[in-house]
Amino acid sequence: MTPHIAAIIGGGVIGGGWAARFLLMGWDVRVFDPDPQAERKINEVLANARRSLPGLSDVALPAEGTLSYHATIDTAVAGVDWIQESVPERLDLKLKVYKTIQDHCPHDAVIGSSTSGFKPSELQQGAVRPEQIVVVHPFNPVYLLPLAELVPSAATSPAIVDKAKAILTGIGMYPLHVRAEIDAHIADRFLEAVWREALWLIKDGIATTEEIDNAIRYGFGLRWAQMGLFETYRIAGGEAGMRHFIEQFGPCLEWPWTKLMDVPELTEELIDAVAGQSDAQSGQYTIRELERARDNNLVTILRGLKAQDWGAGKLLNAQDRRVEGDVALPADLSKPIVTVHRPVPLDWTDYNGHMNEARYLQAFGDATDRMMLLVGCDADYVATGGSFFTAETHIRHLDEVHAGAVIRIETQVLAGAGKKMHLFHRMFEGDRELATGEHMLIHVSLATRKAAEPAPALAATLARLAQAHATLPKPEGAGKAVGVRG
Amino acid sequence: MTPHIAAIIGGGVIGGGWAARFLLMGWDVRVFDPDPQAERKINEVLANARRSLPGLSDVALPAEGTLSYHATIDTAVAGVDWIQESVPERLDLKLKVYKTIQDHCPHDAVIGSSTSGFKPSELQQGAVRPEQIVVVHPFNPVYLLPLAELVPSAATSPAIVDKAKAILTGIGMYPLHVRAEIDAHIADRFLEAVWREALWLIKDGIATTEEIDNAIRYGFGLRWAQMGLFETYRIAGGEAGMRHFIEQFGPCLEWPWTKLMDVPELTEELIDAVAGQSDAQSGQYTIRELERARDNNLVTILRGLKAQDWGAGKLLNAQDRRVEGDVALPADLSKPIVTVHRPVPLDWTDYNGHMNEARYLQAFGDATDRMMLLVGCDADYVATGGSFFTAETHIRHLDEVHAGAVIRIETQVLAGAGKKMHLFHRMFEGDRELATGEHMLIHVSLATRKAAEPAPALAATLARLAQAHATLPKPEGAGKAVGVRG
Repeated sequence: MTPHIAAIIGGGVIGGGWAARFLLMGWDVRVFDPDPQAERKINEVLANARRSLPGLSDVALPAEGTLSYHATIDTAVAGVDWIQESVPERLDLKLKVYKTIQDHCPHDAVIGSSTSGFKPSELQQGAVRPEQIVVVHPFNPVYLLPLAELVPSAATSPAIVDKAKAILTGIGMYPLHVRAEIDAHIADRFLEAVWREALWLIKDGIATTEEIDNAIRYGFGLRWAQMGLFETYRIAGGEAGMRHFIEQFGPCLEWPWTKLMDVPELTEELIDAVAGQSDAQSGQYTIRELERARDNNLVTILRGLKAQDWGAGKLLNAQDRRVEGDVALPADLSKPIVTVHRPVPLDWTDYNGHMNEARYLQAFGDATDRMMLLVGCDADYVATGGSFFTAETHIRHLDEVHAGAVIRIETQVLAGAGKKMHLFHRMFEGDRELATGEHMLIHVSLATRKAAEPAPALAATLARLAQAHATLPKPEGAGKAVGVRG
Repeated sequence: MTPHIAAIIGGGVIGGGWAARFLLMGWDVRVFDPDPQAERKINEVLANARRSLPGLSDVALPAEGTLSYHATIDTAVAGVDWIQESVPERLDLKLKVYKTIQDHCPHDAVIGSSTSGFKPSELQQGAVRPEQIVVVHPFNPVYLLPLAELVPSAATSPAIVDKAKAILTGIGMYPLHVRAEIDAHIADRFLEAVWREALWLIKDGIATTEEIDNAIRYGFGLRWAQMGLFETYRIAGGEAGMRHFIEQFGPCLEWPWTKLMDVPELTEELIDAVAGQSDAQSGQYTIRELERARDNNLVTILRGLKAQDWGAGKLLNAQDRRVEGDVALPADLSKPIVTVHRPVPLDWTDYNGHMNEARYLQAFGDATDRMMLLVGCDADYVATGGSFFTAETHIRHLDEVHAGAVIRIETQVLAGAGKKMHLFHRMFEGDRELATGEHMLIHVSLATRKAAEPAPALAATLARLAQAHATLPKPEGAGKAVGVRG
């Protein structure tokens, strides 16, 4: 396939984001930006995009395209398929740039503008070919967020709109066709409303920037990552439906709940429109199905943020530490040690509610981490340059387990001397054995990444534990190869 | 520990959500709601909460408390620690309810109101003990979203505020102390502004409910799940900082970007306040660090939504299928088959960028899934009631791999006859071998969950592949137990 070519007119965060997305999806990219810092800035965006975008995909992406910088617009736009304009938000400047672009670009190329506020008919003023100009408004970071508002005017050709949709979809974006021109398109109208309200709250001393951000990211922001305003409210309306919700909250429209007091009148016609559109959008799901989809999504998002220890996930980690209290080796070392005791979360299970294969290893890995902690391989120890790496694992799946079940892992130390820590984990729900995990860990130097002796205190604790567990019977399945009966 | 007791006055979605959160965090809960459907409604919320809330935690929660229903308020509130009022939004009704509550509840109990709009001073009108009444405004679903706006009036006692903060934190919530009373507190002011703007867009025929929801959940909604408005814009301002961002977008405040035209004047004082508060909030991070935290969070959220096949994740799954094209057995069966070819995503790695232990099994599990697909165990086959379950796995970790590296898994069929499929996966980055995974799968009947013969067509394809691979040398490490050298 001949590579497609995109011209990026105006670098910066948005233009750089476009460049990165096109490049990483296999397009060749030509950049024009008179800023002497443009190359450095685009390289920084590109570095961020390279570490994050390809991994969104579960398949290998096409080979990265070729990036080139151009001193003039004419060479940047000759023969390209797409031109993306992201110059500063001054109409006179944009019109001048389009003039030069159209003097040199193919007549069937898409000329997309990243403008946040201008309408396409404004951008087309005086153009020789208004039909090829269209607003294509992305969201930062352009290389990760799929939304692109595609706003044609009446003068934009339908062929350009179709071509733009196909190309945007091809580079992994979602073209939202905005059917009527309006200042700030759709999404930025909401952002601007929230921004204005937020500035009032700060000006009036009601809340700080941090309080406002927390009011968003610990609450409705989590909902809006997966459903929007209306689908969320459809659920809130419950079995009585969207019409009930609107009628219930309709009166608030006349109350001073925002500084935005120029309010649409809630006529029967408007209620019908909202309720009817909501049925068309979400009517294929029952309220119960929507609730469960929402909760699955929220649990997944919240647990993802836990893994990043950020935002609402950071709150949950702190909560876990409070619930659990202090962690220490039990006084009685004569029995296997409980290293995991937890419910199976929704994001660990398939659509039938069974725990996924890889999550067995995640639970056993957590059990191993806890055992490391118990023998003294904690953050302070790791900071001195030593740790354990897993060399080998043998998992036997004995029975199934569902979301919500509380699992318990009991860990026996099979050996713990020198550089080796040999563990045997048994996973239970109550008395029912679900799986076993045999793990060989090697103590390493984090500097060399090679096997190394542990510090004496750690070695002593591990030896004491191994000695206590040496009296326990060898567990069924230990030391066995795959396919060999215990 | 004596269990704490909460009284829930008014069930429904919000009251039920409170009941569920308290119960699942170990509190006893007493419900008063005259609605004859209350018990059914609360049980439905509780069922949703039981399947989702406990699994948010990586540790076992306390045993669930006891739920009881009360026909009168007096018995519900006697001796409790917390009373949560979630009755309809009518001030006269709420004041009447508080009167009865205060006639019977302990004087040091928190009386929290779930009101979206009323100020605490309004709720305290005529109360015998105004000092124990405070707004505690949660977000649906109450059992998952951490935010609770805690709004005292000047008459609310500081002891009640402190007690409320401690209890809310204890049940896993984030109490956002709203320091000044205002209609609709903080978050609902934003929701109301967006709601009003959205109604205008529908009324004016600009967008439908679905288009509006997509404008949110494919774009800024994803950002707001992890950073709010100001931290996001701080990043957009780049190295020049928050002041630069405000100055750049300041002029838009005078443009008709929303119907909200009662706009605060952007004085130097207001700019100073916003920039200074943003520094206090986020100044401990460089812009680069914030960008990377944002991207880690977004990748994690997007990939979580992929696993749920919902929202932006559904778009990404469709994109993967387009990039990959058709999936079929290669014509040449004489070599191991490439079953995975993908970059290592950010959410598979630890803070040092190394792939986590459990993700090796996830990748091998994906390789197994692909092999199942290639031999004909696809969705149609599974619908007939047969599938393969993994019985055993042996992983050897040979080398490390980082986020962004493209990994490839080559799969050799060691045996494929009767109910057994014995696979050996080798994971590479280029020529560098990273790990091996030996997997024994058993064909099962999905009805009995027990071993069963596969359908003839599948058995034939598998046998053909096993026969072709029988000529390949036995891979190093195959058939070995943990700790036994290959």
